[in-house]
Amino acid sequence: MRGALMYGPGDVRVEEREDPRIEASTDAIIRVSAACVCGSDLWPYRGLEPHDWPAPMGHEYVGVVEEVGGAVRTIRPGQFVVGSFWASDNTCEICRAGYQGSCVNRINMGSLGAQAELLRVPLADGTLVATPEIPPDDMIPSLLAASDVLGTGWYAAVAAAAGPGKTVAVVGDGAVGLLAVLAAGRLGTERIISMSRIESRQRLAREWGATDIVEERGAEGIARVKELTGGLGAHSAIDAVGTQEAMMQAIGATRPGGHVGFVGYQPVALSGGDLFWSQVHLHGGPAPVRRFLPELIDLIWTRQIDPGKVYDLRLPLHEAAEAYRAMDERRAIKTLLRP
Amino acid sequence: MRGALMYGPGDVRVEEREDPRIEASTDAIIRVSAACVCGSDLWPYRGLEPHDWPAPMGHEYVGVVEEVGGAVRTIRPGQFVVGSFWASDNTCEICRAGYQGSCVNRINMGSLGAQAELLRVPLADGTLVATPEIPPDDMIPSLLAASDVLGTGWYAAVAAAAGPGKTVAVVGDGAVGLLAVLAAGRLGTERIISMSRIESRQRLAREWGATDIVEERGAEGIARVKELTGGLGAHSAIDAVGTQEAMMQAIGATRPGGHVGFVGYQPVALSGGDLFWSQVHLHGGPAPVRRFLPELIDLIWTRQIDPGKVYDLRLPLHEAAEAYRAMDERRAIKTLLRP
Repeated sequence: MRGALMYGPGDVRVEEREDPRIEASTDAIIRVSAACVCGSDLWPYRGLEPHDWPAPMGHEYVGVVEEVGGAVRTIRPGQFVVGSFWASDNTCEICRAGYQGSCVNRINMGSLGAQAELLRVPLADGTLVATPEIPPDDMIPSLLAASDVLGTGWYAAVAAAAGPGKTVAVVGDGAVGLLAVLAAGRLGTERIISMSRIESRQRLAREWGATDIVEERGAEGIARVKELTGGLGAHSAIDAVGTQEAMMQAIGATRPGGHVGFVGYQPVALSGGDLFWSQVHLHGGPAPVRRFLPELIDLIWTRQIDPGKVYDLRLPLHEAAEAYRAMDERRAIKTLLRP
Repeated sequence: MRGALMYGPGDVRVEEREDPRIEASTDAIIRVSAACVCGSDLWPYRGLEPHDWPAPMGHEYVGVVEEVGGAVRTIRPGQFVVGSFWASDNTCEICRAGYQGSCVNRINMGSLGAQAELLRVPLADGTLVATPEIPPDDMIPSLLAASDVLGTGWYAAVAAAAGPGKTVAVVGDGAVGLLAVLAAGRLGTERIISMSRIESRQRLAREWGATDIVEERGAEGIARVKELTGGLGAHSAIDAVGTQEAMMQAIGATRPGGHVGFVGYQPVALSGGDLFWSQVHLHGGPAPVRRFLPELIDLIWTRQIDPGKVYDLRLPLHEAAEAYRAMDERRAIKTLLRP
């Protein structure tokens, strides 16, 4: 089969790779209908993360089941499925508490390489959720979004306790930030402040429920959010970026007793003093996307949400190198790849 | 009146100070029945906090109302009252959300000096809670504990989401840690692991509901908590110390999706990566004691709890210097002062 391999920073190639096969009786093999490039794929691409090269790439995927291992009970060949970037058993105590990203048996799907024609999915019963039928082609981008960015934005909104009566500030207007706006809106949030400077992204944020746009950043951004919230700060804020500045902006924009959800990973240093006096609730990390998949698939299937709009560049798999370049150079919010 | 003044690190004197008087129509003047020395009073005592000298000391107090300003409506002269270490209006949006320690009109009671015969309490209606009658003498230590350490331990347990079905690990066996054990117990927590090395404190922890004692610290302490919890970690942990080691021990001892409550303040540096992968909920800061006062006074009044036991040294006010020395040298968990 064909699949993307990264040979080093800035060097992505689509080559012939060995077909994956069932290795454990709980595995499934799927034929990938669509995959994409994640913001986190840019870390090794930019040389910010050590790696053994060449590395298979990609951890977001939807596809049709080709084959399942003997112990797989709920997933059948021919089904269209969506999975998360962590394979999880969905039965351990951590999974049952809704933290499938920390499943005691978790496997990082990134190590298997979803930017390919075929993909082995471990723990298939726990990891994959089937759609009611084979979806129409125009729905595939939205279902693919559920596999990571939508689930991550959704988790950020839930971690930030977004909901009725609340004002939520969203720091970041990448795919996750925009989908956090969408999630906050669907969760009934009264007022959503999108912190964005890019006009096309502001437009999508407004379409998905943002009531206010704040272009200022840092201390000025915080001051502007306070101005919009009677001097108190938002009830909730979301860090959908993962830089020091974004995290401090989210904490600073939140009133005492409020909630900050964070989903962007970068080495942020938090002073206990800042946190102590802020009195915010802080929660986040790698999103347990699997927790939300059934609900998200239903919202997409019934055309209530259209998260696939974040893919503003769609390319065939063999142009994966250009997909990475476009995101690295910020020419695209997010690139979809079709094998 | 007589009151404690700190003239510099290690130098506490009880001297004649000017009697406080009503300055704002929302003030009350109380005759202090008991005050005490807080762990945080030891920061300036140890030279760890800059200060203008001499400084009036003390922010924990119970007493009898002598006089109220013209705008005070709910507090009357002759009532026995308990207050928090922040004066708060208890009517602003932040107070109504339960975060009176961040009241938009808050005043730090420490700046007024509760280790004295008389004390001015600003925002009396919002700050003070009266007991049903004048309490019997043996109940005064417990009511005084409600003013800070009990309220702080209670907040830590609530911030850590302690409750039925949960296992909670408590890092720290000072007054706040021990009272966090008591609080977790009252909140119905199934299993309470007290992390303590001192036999007398372990005994009090057990009396107040600790089911397990862990003497190990750091990585070994974390490993021991995991061993006691099927390898997963506790559902919740409380940092009742406020050092880097205690905070990392609390985060490390908590399972993904669990809750960490922290109430001890010291300059802790948190790596976003540690927090990101831990997947814990983090909440804490200066306790909004006022939120809990009515409930805590009721539990004490009906003799359901006896938090006054944390005062293992009780001295007359004029021996305040010895009260500080005893706590500084760890001869006492907490010292009560009676004017």
